[in-house]
Amino acid sequence: MATHRFDPTFTDNVINAMGPKTTPRMRKLMAGLIRHMHDFAREEELTVDEWMAGVQMLNWAGRMSDDKRNEGQLVCDVLGLESLVDEITFTLAEEAQDAPTATAILGPFFRADTPYRENGEDIVKTKPADGEMTFMHGRVIDFQTKKPLVGATVEVWQASTNGLYEQQDPDQVEFNLRGKFKTDEDGKYSFYCLRPTPYPVPNDGPAGKLLELMDRHPFRPAHIHILATYDNYRPLTTQIFDRKDKYLDNDSVFAVKDSLVVDFVPRKDDPQAAIELEYDVKLVKFEPSTDGGAWASSRI
Amino acid sequence: MATHRFDPTFTDNVINAMGPKTTPRMRKLMAGLIRHMHDFAREEELTVDEWMAGVQMLNWAGRMSDDKRNEGQLVCDVLGLESLVDEITFTLAEEAQDAPTATAILGPFFRADTPYRENGEDIVKTKPADGEMTFMHGRVIDFQTKKPLVGATVEVWQASTNGLYEQQDPDQVEFNLRGKFKTDEDGKYSFYCLRPTPYPVPNDGPAGKLLELMDRHPFRPAHIHILATYDNYRPLTTQIFDRKDKYLDNDSVFAVKDSLVVDFVPRKDDPQAAIELEYDVKLVKFEPSTDGGAWASSRI
Repeated sequence: MATHRFDPTFTDNVINAMGPKTTPRMRKLMAGLIRHMHDFAREEELTVDEWMAGVQMLNWAGRMSDDKRNEGQLVCDVLGLESLVDEITFTLAEEAQDAPTATAILGPFFRADTPYRENGEDIVKTKPADGEMTFMHGRVIDFQTKKPLVGATVEVWQASTNGLYEQQDPDQVEFNLRGKFKTDEDGKYSFYCLRPTPYPVPNDGPAGKLLELMDRHPFRPAHIHILATYDNYRPLTTQIFDRKDKYLDNDSVFAVKDSLVVDFVPRKDDPQAAIELEYDVKLVKFEPSTDGGAWASSRI
Repeated sequence: MATHRFDPTFTDNVINAMGPKTTPRMRKLMAGLIRHMHDFAREEELTVDEWMAGVQMLNWAGRMSDDKRNEGQLVCDVLGLESLVDEITFTLAEEAQDAPTATAILGPFFRADTPYRENGEDIVKTKPADGEMTFMHGRVIDFQTKKPLVGATVEVWQASTNGLYEQQDPDQVEFNLRGKFKTDEDGKYSFYCLRPTPYPVPNDGPAGKLLELMDRHPFRPAHIHILATYDNYRPLTTQIFDRKDKYLDNDSVFAVKDSLVVDFVPRKDDPQAAIELEYDVKLVKFEPSTDGGAWASSRI
């Protein structure tokens, strides 16, 4: 780390160029970012070519991104950054109050315009020949009182067996394998979906290029995304993972947590599905007095 | 820096996910990048919203970038990263051999397709009313022997008095204020240009937004870009700055070095220009035996 060979005042000069109207949080964030970027460059003696290769990769990510795809997010994901930021937010919340259901990353395939569906509805609108139909059901409950929350929203999304979400695949009808559900008078939600299957993250952009350069596989373990919300409760973004998946220990985006691993079990006497998954979502009441600012930013 | 509150194994897990086919340099660079990114996130307790704001800013930079504009590069520039990487490359070269003319960043307005012009030609093809015509001339010499280099290429580019390079400004003809020159039998080059004027970096993208958030002005001190090349010599990318400029001490991209500050002086008996600048470019011979890999990457 022979960083003393380089101008020792340079980084402080860049940081101190910030003016008096910068907000305190912005000043702290930018100072930390500039210091780490510069230390990285000095420690690794980053060359002009290497730096420019990184710039071109980030520009490429931006050009690939649109309403349906966020490649900049995916680049962060394969470097573990989204999972880490999720852990930080979760830890701050845990310290502020109790532990809700563990969180996981939102991922780049969430769609804000997903429609509401009826409980018991089948979200498999385009059926793949190799899909295993699954009945998923459970309740949304208050983490502390265990009481059911009536009228809570449970939003789910999953990839099809070809590894693609509907917005990536012209052969799937729009909003296939997605839906928003309102819990009933017992706090229950239910729907038919596919048993999730592992799939590779898209490898036609810089995230895929990075994985190749790092000699890593692109697979994510089988999972279902959940975003649960209820008035005056903390919104919860999570993913649940199939215990039998072979990528559970080496998720390409590092999102697996032990408490999010679930068991799919055989289901009897249901012509629509041979498998079921029962999963209760636990939400924590939002307490403005003890929450501080941390949770204001947990919702994207 | 209460980083112990977060999973202490997470960052090592991400780094150790790299496979055996990663090159040693890639493994070192990615390990350093991941460690600094993660340390930054933990130390500043980066929230999901703040991280996502950063992702959107990088995606925005990519969408703005094309053959004529590199906004990802400009974002790095306002954070001092290009100047730092330039210093690192220069220092490695200095340690390997002698000190050539100091280098400076290429900047985002270089064009690879700039045409050759005759010595003595006027590169001001679109004349601004407030431009001060300047005769720039000098030699390209060997740094050690001081001998002139015949047939060396000197490429220059500068902004017009409205602060815009020709590719940013539909009112300037293509390749205005740019040119490539071959040194004559005495190693001399010469051309007419404008006395450079300070200008703001483009503020319609994420780099401008960052400057605003950091409460910094966007101005660069008046300068002329130079890229000089000669067979078997190290290519030189630099900028020269007008000593009288008021932004010399607070360049928005941190590129000024004392040895690159020059004096424009009055010129007599030339109806084409009332000012002149004499500037010799010193190039260092490329010695493969002592150069190592550092200089292979100094040319973009």
